[in-house]
Amino acid sequence: MAKILTLTLNPALDLTVQMAHLEAGQVNRSDAMHTHAAGKGLNVAQVLADLGHQLTVSGFLGENNPQAFDALFAQRGFVDAFIRVPGDTRSNIKLAESDGRITDINGLGPEVSEAAQQALLERLEQIAPGHDAVVVAGSLPRGVSPEWFQALLLRLKSLGLKVALDTSGAALRAGLTTGPWLIKPNTEELADALGSPVLGVAVQAEAARLLQAQGVEHVVISHGAEGVNWFSAGLSLQAQPPKVSVVSTVGAGDSLLAGMLHGLLSAQPFEQTLRTATAIAAMAVTQIGFGISDRAQLARLEQGVRVHPLLEQ
Amino acid sequence: MAKILTLTLNPALDLTVQMAHLEAGQVNRSDAMHTHAAGKGLNVAQVLADLGHQLTVSGFLGENNPQAFDALFAQRGFVDAFIRVPGDTRSNIKLAESDGRITDINGLGPEVSEAAQQALLERLEQIAPGHDAVVVAGSLPRGVSPEWFQALLLRLKSLGLKVALDTSGAALRAGLTTGPWLIKPNTEELADALGSPVLGVAVQAEAARLLQAQGVEHVVISHGAEGVNWFSAGLSLQAQPPKVSVVSTVGAGDSLLAGMLHGLLSAQPFEQTLRTATAIAAMAVTQIGFGISDRAQLARLEQGVRVHPLLEQ
Repeated sequence: MAKILTLTLNPALDLTVQMAHLEAGQVNRSDAMHTHAAGKGLNVAQVLADLGHQLTVSGFLGENNPQAFDALFAQRGFVDAFIRVPGDTRSNIKLAESDGRITDINGLGPEVSEAAQQALLERLEQIAPGHDAVVVAGSLPRGVSPEWFQALLLRLKSLGLKVALDTSGAALRAGLTTGPWLIKPNTEELADALGSPVLGVAVQAEAARLLQAQGVEHVVISHGAEGVNWFSAGLSLQAQPPKVSVVSTVGAGDSLLAGMLHGLLSAQPFEQTLRTATAIAAMAVTQIGFGISDRAQLARLEQGVRVHPLLEQ
Repeated sequence: MAKILTLTLNPALDLTVQMAHLEAGQVNRSDAMHTHAAGKGLNVAQVLADLGHQLTVSGFLGENNPQAFDALFAQRGFVDAFIRVPGDTRSNIKLAESDGRITDINGLGPEVSEAAQQALLERLEQIAPGHDAVVVAGSLPRGVSPEWFQALLLRLKSLGLKVALDTSGAALRAGLTTGPWLIKPNTEELADALGSPVLGVAVQAEAARLLQAQGVEHVVISHGAEGVNWFSAGLSLQAQPPKVSVVSTVGAGDSLLAGMLHGLLSAQPFEQTLRTATAIAAMAVTQIGFGISDRAQLARLEQGVRVHPLLEQ
């Protein structure tokens, strides 16, 4: 069992509304609404907890509406190292109609002050010792610059933590310069970060070699149902998940990242690590939420994952 | 100062989302979101508290998401006599676009069990003594029948409370048979309850006479910007509010009801009671929320209200 810190700088309250049909400008009825504490780092933490690890969770939380987060931390036994900031944690509303149409309405989070950013750095310096790794996942909140984010990642690295980074855009570009231990972009995020249309395996391998030269030990590139490519020193593996019925892709990428950390921190064989991680991600898409609710189903999915060396051109 | 109980059997969390434009099936951004504890009885309670009265609030609350309600009760000094029931208090989402278009998405509340209904009756028997009046406002939750509602109103009356009723449909029809002290339907609600079409003043007066014969002391009929008609023994008054810029009509009817209770329980002259109540309602429509935020503005609005005897034909 590892002790893992996850950082969610821009968490969200997810509100899923199920309804027959959305008619704009009218009074509509919903059939069900569900609110839950969300954010990529918190999603990763939940899957890691399912896998038996000890979690500390941190980042910034709006002080006006912490209840769903407090409840999650208590329920899952997470050590709460979040910095509270004035305002409301943003809400992301998902209107799900019975014909499958989804309308997202994503909120603005609170503006995070420099004082709060400094408070987070100090809190992390206090709590970092004793953790094996830190997962830094998701977008940057208002008020946080890519430059500050870069400094944060360097500080975490200097504190002796393995840094697993999962973000996109300017935050990913800034983060890559710090040589994180592991990154898990999808193909679009990687292409955007590198400013080139990264498509084929050969180009991915070349990009991974460049990133490794910058100190990135593990480059894990996800490509949805097509699978996962993993590049590391002397290693290039591809995993293809079994075909599953897609219920919701929410949390699938976070599940893959959690699975990779689990295998690597447990010193499992590479092939097994990638197989399990891919199966955990496949399991996420078969459910409304994510997480390891059924060990037997996970074992079946693992058997359906095909892992093979990548053929580089 | 009076001591008043308000009953909200089917409260709601109101979530107002401000956005530039809603595009169904797409990822939209919101500019601001505000959540607040709502429900007609709670709205009336807040205006009565603004007017200096002591409030006890009751009804049914979902035990999963009580935080906004707990915060409101603490902030306003309400005595909390709500019965907690399993599940979530419903959420009503209001998507407000910058061009003024409003899309409502109203949720389902929890199913209220017979045991919870019995618990509410017992709680009300304990707390009723010492209250001057009870306001019963809003719709019935799932699981509550018009017959049970009727029995509830009779019980409240037998406990010596003046019952002010503000509901609609089957609940209003059931409630009218119990001879509440005061009712405040709008013209549509009254027409629906009586099973007859749009009501002119003469028909309203006739309906009021029939209702008075059933024990309804005060019949207050609201008609939006056109004003309020009030029928009681030997009394028929009409009030016309001053013209105001309409910002939001949320809480206007609840404000009118609170104002009527205030005047009647404070034994103010009838004409003054109706004038103040009409002004409080007009004030509600000039703001995003409602309530008496500005006493000077209220005084100006009162001066603009025209009250005169109704000319019955």
